[in-house]
Amino acid sequence: MSDQTVGELGEFALIDAIASRLAKSSAASVPVGIGDDSAVVSAKGGNVVACLDMLTQGVHFRLDWSEASDIGRKAAAQNLADIFAMGASPTALLVGLALPQETPVNWVMQLADGLSAEAELVGVTVVGGDIVRGDSIVISVTALGELGNSQAILRSGAMPGHVVALAGRIGFAQAGLLMLSRGFRSPRVLVGAHRVPEPPYDLAKLAVHATSMIDISDGLVSDLGHIAAASGVVIDIETNSFEIPEALAAAASAFNGNAMEWILTGGEDHAFAATFKTALDVPSGWTIIGSVASGSPSVTVDGAEYLGRGWDHFSTN
Amino acid sequence: MSDQTVGELGEFALIDAIASRLAKSSAASVPVGIGDDSAVVSAKGGNVVACLDMLTQGVHFRLDWSEASDIGRKAAAQNLADIFAMGASPTALLVGLALPQETPVNWVMQLADGLSAEAELVGVTVVGGDIVRGDSIVISVTALGELGNSQAILRSGAMPGHVVALAGRIGFAQAGLLMLSRGFRSPRVLVGAHRVPEPPYDLAKLAVHATSMIDISDGLVSDLGHIAAASGVVIDIETNSFEIPEALAAAASAFNGNAMEWILTGGEDHAFAATFKTALDVPSGWTIIGSVASGSPSVTVDGAEYLGRGWDHFSTN
Repeated sequence: MSDQTVGELGEFALIDAIASRLAKSSAASVPVGIGDDSAVVSAKGGNVVACLDMLTQGVHFRLDWSEASDIGRKAAAQNLADIFAMGASPTALLVGLALPQETPVNWVMQLADGLSAEAELVGVTVVGGDIVRGDSIVISVTALGELGNSQAILRSGAMPGHVVALAGRIGFAQAGLLMLSRGFRSPRVLVGAHRVPEPPYDLAKLAVHATSMIDISDGLVSDLGHIAAASGVVIDIETNSFEIPEALAAAASAFNGNAMEWILTGGEDHAFAATFKTALDVPSGWTIIGSVASGSPSVTVDGAEYLGRGWDHFSTN
Repeated sequence: MSDQTVGELGEFALIDAIASRLAKSSAASVPVGIGDDSAVVSAKGGNVVACLDMLTQGVHFRLDWSEASDIGRKAAAQNLADIFAMGASPTALLVGLALPQETPVNWVMQLADGLSAEAELVGVTVVGGDIVRGDSIVISVTALGELGNSQAILRSGAMPGHVVALAGRIGFAQAGLLMLSRGFRSPRVLVGAHRVPEPPYDLAKLAVHATSMIDISDGLVSDLGHIAAASGVVIDIETNSFEIPEALAAAASAFNGNAMEWILTGGEDHAFAATFKTALDVPSGWTIIGSVASGSPSVTVDGAEYLGRGWDHFSTN
């Protein structure tokens, strides 16, 4: 199989080869996995939490910048983060792959390994999907989750007086992408953050008293803007609440960049931002970074309008 | 908006424009729809049924052969059929779109209208998804469903002595694709079947006593082969149980084709095949087309090995 392309191997054999590499699911949480028209997955509490994210070659990843296994992990991570951001527990992934016929089978196997490894971090696996021929590689991941006896944590629950807190690193993926785009493969902590985000799943699970929550995929200011809009509030971020990590500071200095701008606008780190009624509700491991006030929905930085930019997947810069 | 491209409009405005055109969901079945990190959807019975299918430009559709609304309907239909084939009721769709920047916004709106119209046929709507930039158009649809108090109908439940029955037309989409590939736009009933399959959702719902069920996406022989393999049985199809529809007979005659071959191997009609313990369990509207026997898993046609072919999305013919 080592030199085969997916066109040579064929659709069904490829699916079998992938399925054989995936972690096995438990019959309790996945009564029906790969191999039927649909999967059947636990949805304790009587509702399912579901999201779908796509990654496309050239936009979300480059084959010369990322290993297949990294791309698989990233595809899984960004979807799992969306499940945790609802206060839910993930239960399964479904994966769709569009692949050019000349794609090496080995590349696809490593992609599957990456998806499976990231899913295993939170105890789930791939339970179904589809593989089709395409002009370039497109990865579509659907994550499913369950709430049990909990209520979903929405973007709309922030109220004036609540505190804003953050879990996880931000700005790293953006800085790493900049390094790669300038032809560098280091520093590893930044480049690695672009290749594989590390959503702090365990910290998200602690946020049981969050009044609103979101995962930072487009940038802190941009994503808090979604909470501000959904909740009808003003969110102010205090820049002096951030200790600028040494890696970011060094990179900013070397590349004439602005570390605080990366922190405020860098996307794809999949950290979590949330609001809480009081500082006492903020779990250990989270950092308070701002506050919620009344007013026309917006995000301010140190009390003033922020003129940076977010991340639009159709923009070319 | 009429002449805008998706690159000009931008990701968030495009999502808003699509969301505003979708049918509204009921708060009971979709507690959280578009606009949060994930959707929350009813899963009565404590399990969710989920499947994912992808369609790519040039493989599953051609922009010069199908209207955007037809492509949307097809994308929804083939996923909804996978939910019904489990004996489940659909509850929601999630949709991922990879779009070149030059894609007209109007084309995307019509695609959304088609997705929404097909989903409305079975009382559901689009509750979330993702839009990204891509080299060519890729549509990824995830359908969700619920079982309530029912058991899932699997591929593995066929037993020797059971009867095999079919609901819906087959061979039409394959014949329609052939017409289009030869430069014809008619007959409408065949070309239309390629553009928009019409899964007989209501007939699938009647199959409450099916011992196994599958939706015909790859071709009758090929898909019954999945039931044969999962159930460990031999399935025999009797060709004299089919009345060859006039449209297929006429097209076969005009194009030197074989109508029975289209019926046995044509994919993408999304009819339903199922097995039942006895003929008495076969619902009205279904046609008995064969029987289940013991033996090494295989599908035979009139008692003999069938040498036709199925449908592999990586093959080029």
